[in-house]
Amino acid sequence: MSERFDGRAPDELRTISITPNFTDMPAASVLVRFGRTTVMCTASIDKSVPRWMDKPGNTRGWVTGEYSMLPGATDPRFRREVHRGGLSGRTQEIQRLIGRSLRAVTDLEKLGPRTIYLDCDVLQADGGTRTASITGAYVALALACEKLLAEALIDEVPLNDSVAAISCGIVEGRALLDLPYVEDSAADVDMNVVMTGSGRLIEVQGTGEEATFSRAELNALLDLAEKGIGELTAMQNDVLPERLHFK
Amino acid sequence: MSERFDGRAPDELRTISITPNFTDMPAASVLVRFGRTTVMCTASIDKSVPRWMDKPGNTRGWVTGEYSMLPGATDPRFRREVHRGGLSGRTQEIQRLIGRSLRAVTDLEKLGPRTIYLDCDVLQADGGTRTASITGAYVALALACEKLLAEALIDEVPLNDSVAAISCGIVEGRALLDLPYVEDSAADVDMNVVMTGSGRLIEVQGTGEEATFSRAELNALLDLAEKGIGELTAMQNDVLPERLHFK
Amino acid sequence: MSERFDGRAPDELRTISITPNFTDMPAASVLVRFGRTTVMCTASIDKSVPRWMDKPGNTRGWVTGEYSMLPGATDPRFRREVHRGGLSGRTQEIQRLIGRSLRAVTDLEKLGPRTIYLDCDVLQADGGTRTASITGAYVALALACEKLLAEALIDEVPLNDSVAAISCGIVEGRALLDLPYVEDSAADVDMNVVMTGSGRLIEVQGTGEEATFSRAELNALLDLAEKGIGELTAMQNDVLPERLHFK
Amino acid sequence: MSERFDGRAPDELRTISITPNFTDMPAASVLVRFGRTTVMCTASIDKSVPRWMDKPGNTRGWVTGEYSMLPGATDPRFRREVHRGGLSGRTQEIQRLIGRSLRAVTDLEKLGPRTIYLDCDVLQADGGTRTASITGAYVALALACEKLLAEALIDEVPLNDSVAAISCGIVEGRALLDLPYVEDSAADVDMNVVMTGSGRLIEVQGTGEEATFSRAELNALLDLAEKGIGELTAMQNDVLPERLHFK
Amino acid sequence: MSERFDGRAPDELRTISITPNFTDMPAASVLVRFGRTTVMCTASIDKSVPRWMDKPGNTRGWVTGEYSMLPGATDPRFRREVHRGGLSGRTQEIQRLIGRSLRAVTDLEKLGPRTIYLDCDVLQADGGTRTASITGAYVALALACEKLLAEALIDEVPLNDSVAAISCGIVEGRALLDLPYVEDSAADVDMNVVMTGSGRLIEVQGTGEEATFSRAELNALLDLAEKGIGELTAMQNDVLPERLHFK
Amino acid sequence: MSERFDGRAPDELRTISITPNFTDMPAASVLVRFGRTTVMCTASIDKSVPRWMDKPGNTRGWVTGEYSMLPGATDPRFRREVHRGGLSGRTQEIQRLIGRSLRAVTDLEKLGPRTIYLDCDVLQADGGTRTASITGAYVALALACEKLLAEALIDEVPLNDSVAAISCGIVEGRALLDLPYVEDSAADVDMNVVMTGSGRLIEVQGTGEEATFSRAELNALLDLAEKGIGELTAMQNDVLPERLHFK
Repeated sequence: MSERFDGRAPDELRTISITPNFTDMPAASVLVRFGRTTVMCTASIDKSVPRWMDKPGNTRGWVTGEYSMLPGATDPRFRREVHRGGLSGRTQEIQRLIGRSLRAVTDLEKLGPRTIYLDCDVLQADGGTRTASITGAYVALALACEKLLAEALIDEVPLNDSVAAISCGIVEGRALLDLPYVEDSAADVDMNVVMTGSGRLIEVQGTGEEATFSRAELNALLDLAEKGIGELTAMQNDVLPERLHFK
Repeated sequence: MSERFDGRAPDELRTISITPNFTDMPAASVLVRFGRTTVMCTASIDKSVPRWMDKPGNTRGWVTGEYSMLPGATDPRFRREVHRGGLSGRTQEIQRLIGRSLRAVTDLEKLGPRTIYLDCDVLQADGGTRTASITGAYVALALACEKLLAEALIDEVPLNDSVAAISCGIVEGRALLDLPYVEDSAADVDMNVVMTGSGRLIEVQGTGEEATFSRAELNALLDLAEKGIGELTAMQNDVLPERLHFK
Repeated sequence: MSERFDGRAPDELRTISITPNFTDMPAASVLVRFGRTTVMCTASIDKSVPRWMDKPGNTRGWVTGEYSMLPGATDPRFRREVHRGGLSGRTQEIQRLIGRSLRAVTDLEKLGPRTIYLDCDVLQADGGTRTASITGAYVALALACEKLLAEALIDEVPLNDSVAAISCGIVEGRALLDLPYVEDSAADVDMNVVMTGSGRLIEVQGTGEEATFSRAELNALLDLAEKGIGELTAMQNDVLPERLHFK
Repeated sequence: MSERFDGRAPDELRTISITPNFTDMPAASVLVRFGRTTVMCTASIDKSVPRWMDKPGNTRGWVTGEYSMLPGATDPRFRREVHRGGLSGRTQEIQRLIGRSLRAVTDLEKLGPRTIYLDCDVLQADGGTRTASITGAYVALALACEKLLAEALIDEVPLNDSVAAISCGIVEGRALLDLPYVEDSAADVDMNVVMTGSGRLIEVQGTGEEATFSRAELNALLDLAEKGIGELTAMQNDVLPERLHFK
Repeated sequence: MSERFDGRAPDELRTISITPNFTDMPAASVLVRFGRTTVMCTASIDKSVPRWMDKPGNTRGWVTGEYSMLPGATDPRFRREVHRGGLSGRTQEIQRLIGRSLRAVTDLEKLGPRTIYLDCDVLQADGGTRTASITGAYVALALACEKLLAEALIDEVPLNDSVAAISCGIVEGRALLDLPYVEDSAADVDMNVVMTGSGRLIEVQGTGEEATFSRAELNALLDLAEKGIGELTAMQNDVLPERLHFK
Repeated sequence: MSERFDGRAPDELRTISITPNFTDMPAASVLVRFGRTTVMCTASIDKSVPRWMDKPGNTRGWVTGEYSMLPGATDPRFRREVHRGGLSGRTQEIQRLIGRSLRAVTDLEKLGPRTIYLDCDVLQADGGTRTASITGAYVALALACEKLLAEALIDEVPLNDSVAAISCGIVEGRALLDLPYVEDSAADVDMNVVMTGSGRLIEVQGTGEEATFSRAELNALLDLAEKGIGELTAMQNDVLPERLHFK
């Protein structure tokens, strides 16, 4: 059986790095790399909550995500969305996914009446930008929570579990983990999986790209994702203080 | 075990109706009802293809979907997106899903250099509008193909299979099929499944709504969806001419 | 003298139908047909009033209209206005006309501090969509008032009269009533008339289309419109409860 | 019977002035005043035609109008439409009316394949801005045609007649001509009439403002308008060269 | 040494006129001409302040500018910015400059909690529109302050100095004052200078247009500007009441 | 005399770093830091030229800049401009400045018919983002030219000189070089200067912030800027190959 173009085994992640404190102004700033894919994830804390939440007596907070590709992230250059008259459907879909994934492990009551924005700005894109974003944004969220604890603005960790995400897909009949652009664009089936550190599913998005797939193929992809997310969870814990580890 | 609020069994569809020729100007017009959810699906044939396809020598066509909620579709009234400065992320996500689902069964080469627009306008919304849209849009697409055949503009059916879609979810711990709004808004896990008439998956979107789920729960939901889509496929065939039936 | 292309007399309306309760979620829902022209008119009641009215001590309500063509309403397909960066001048002109026409017979004081939205969504367009919209929207407005009365939210009918509208025009030298698209596009003079059930004018819009007209021609068209509106008023009353009939 | 607030008779125009050559860069520039209402009407000639006209073999031209209120035109200040996200319905309605009115007297074939833009910018607004705009824009159009003739770019006057416009209305039961803001805002019926110099109607727009009107009232208003337009036509001719006079 | 195309000396202004009370509705209205360049500058007083200022206890006011080119201001016609989807960078840059320049001489505390809008609408453009706008807008601002004083809404002149502005540039190696379009478009270096009547700088913007310049050239241009602004200050004072003169 | 808050001398730059090859997909990628201010400058080469240049026979190229602040660049978070309906005036002003500054040293003829985009994305903002952007963008531009030379797409260096930029200002009466946010926000006069490596001016923008300044103060600021730009030029040359050094 032929090797992948970069020599990886079918169930092998690219080289991953997670660098906290990349910049120092926001509440937290993480630079995450999945191979050449590079995303800056910052967490900013705002003292207000969205208007629809902001009712007398509200004690809950909110967590939301934004996602953007920088123009130099790809070759050819990616035209800024501000010049196209608004966010594309793809960007909005990814933003909604980031926010939903992080909220699935956040105790909004313990967070208290504030909003944490997770901004995922893609400095370089080579496939898997949404899963790198979620994986890095979780670390930024956890570090921002750590900061709130350190400043005694909250007194309990407002998270129930960790979150990580990975892509997988079926390329030329083989189920592969963590697709770079060259594999992603050749995939018949494309799947993104978001899971907690404890192995529960948060989101499964499997899409046939002008193709269809069977239940058995779906299961093979989920097995790959589960393995990859386990490894990402360990790497996230490596850069986080112990009181933010979940089992 | 308690019944569902409307007396249905957990694996039972709402009352479904699929009415072809609801209006007579577009190439095809289908009114589909899933319970109170009512969608007008029209197919319009355009002689051009999208700009990115329109290169010398191109012989392929395109199929695309649009989705919109009418303001009277819900109570309270739904504010038109044209007044909000553009399509919401949700609308764009649904439009992309409709187009992708229909293209998965279309032979764009056999369709020839033309575009079929499937417009899904929701006249009344009570949950499951995207799955009703896909189910109705497939019928409109098939009827538009029938029209192209009848007018000898193409000489082969440009479809490989049929498509239908259904929602399911976990509500108060039970896996349920075809959720109306009242169940949908109480669901911990929400899933939309698009399948072909021959039982292959096109799209699986499972989402924990501030909740997580296990592989076993995922499988239970997929079983429900498979059953429902089998029934929808039969109803689609009932209103389509035999040469558009696939096994 | 030659017949009209569909065999009608110059002063004859197309086949008209007015179907109440077409859907069941909004306060009122009416499907109106003028020949092939098909409009869904829904009335939605909102507990607030527009910002400019919303001053301490305000006791008056508001009635407003919106109008939209569905993409499948015409062949070739009608491109959605949300994709063109906003409402066209034509759409805004029609919306303003619908609102103005209905307010001319509404007692906003008796309606009380609430807004009734009349949404006129054109499912199929074959000329006369604005006049069909006004004629159907009046029925939806009256049924919404009936609902407010039935729920004892108001204690008097907040309407002074009924409203209906019809188009007419000069085509190849002849004054004709209720123009379908084929006649409308050939007309030298195009007129829309809105009148009350008691025969008072609300709006007269006569336009020479790269042509001019005399006072005598204007009068001939007004005579036709008066006859047509009389007939439409009777059909409106047929579907409305007696306490909503005006003489 | 009481006088009008400014001492005019019911059928009397305000002081009108029409000043050609107000600026010298565009093809024609006219400053028109109806009382305090002040509009700069410029005509600009463009060598192209709109895209929908621009087909091989096209020999016809186009005439179109634009209308805008300057922020200092009213007190309180009028907020620019560019800051509101687009043209209001009212502005678009007026623009369409200006273009339609001028095209009704233009021979687009004789004009040849070019576009004349008539820009009507309201420097000060005190009622009747749309009718002052049409009256001034006609003069600018005629002077631009004169310029084309003088430069031998065309060899025949491409106009069939002149155009002028006036407002009238029913205020406290009296039919009045040429309403300034204070009368306009108190009117029960508001009418704008566009006529040719030879007395043919181009446009009649009569609107009950939360009121209705009879056929007899409509006729009284049309009589007033006819008188006023006769006087405006004479004033237009005073500033135009003889070969641009029509009888 | 060759003369300038219009016979002026290098340090000579074009014919300047400043006409107050050009219209009578806004608080002040000034028509300013620098040669053919013609700008209507109106001042409108609003009782509110911008949202970011509007805090309990605020006693300060605001002065802001808007700038717009009318379509007939140039030949060929200038397309309205409302049709291009928003203000150009150039327009915004000029608006910010106008506001900043006027605020540099305004005592916002003495002005009190109100906003003065200075609208600079360019009726004809032949170079130097931004400097003519600032020069005229200052006169409109001063007259609006005079009006506030006359109405006893304020009791002290809220201005510290006057403001005027002029362009200069290096054209074919010569430093020239007050460039019309033909010189401006040939300039290698383009400079706009805003100064007070007492000779202090407010803004210096010197730009090499695909060219560079030396410190000595910069100084030669500043000398020209100083001379021109001295002359403009005198002309401003000629149309302003004595209590608005500063030394 | 008191020290600056960070201990620097009045004419001392912050710690500067210029890191080439920060990412590897675009033609060039430079990370530049002026103290905490951090900007990623990428150069992307496009084979086309802007539409207004793209005429038969064109042999020239184009250089343009874009500028954007990432939301995590500041605390509090900076709201993305795509959500505000377009680019702010400030952003457009900076973009125009970047493009103009780089074109002043580029030989567009030697560059040939292609566009180089310089994207300056601010990862962290602490004053001086526009001057850091220009300084870094020049390095990215030079490296992109080097790449074109290396690939033999051009055969001569298409640059005439280098470019760098620095801010300076008057704070509490002292002229200071390279202002961080805390000094910038307290400055009475704010100046940005763009110069070539050989000491010629490209742009001088001096602004009184609700203050005015004298010719002597202007000169003191220009002296500071000249010194700072000399030092930046040396640092740029350190990371560029010799054939891209100018004297």
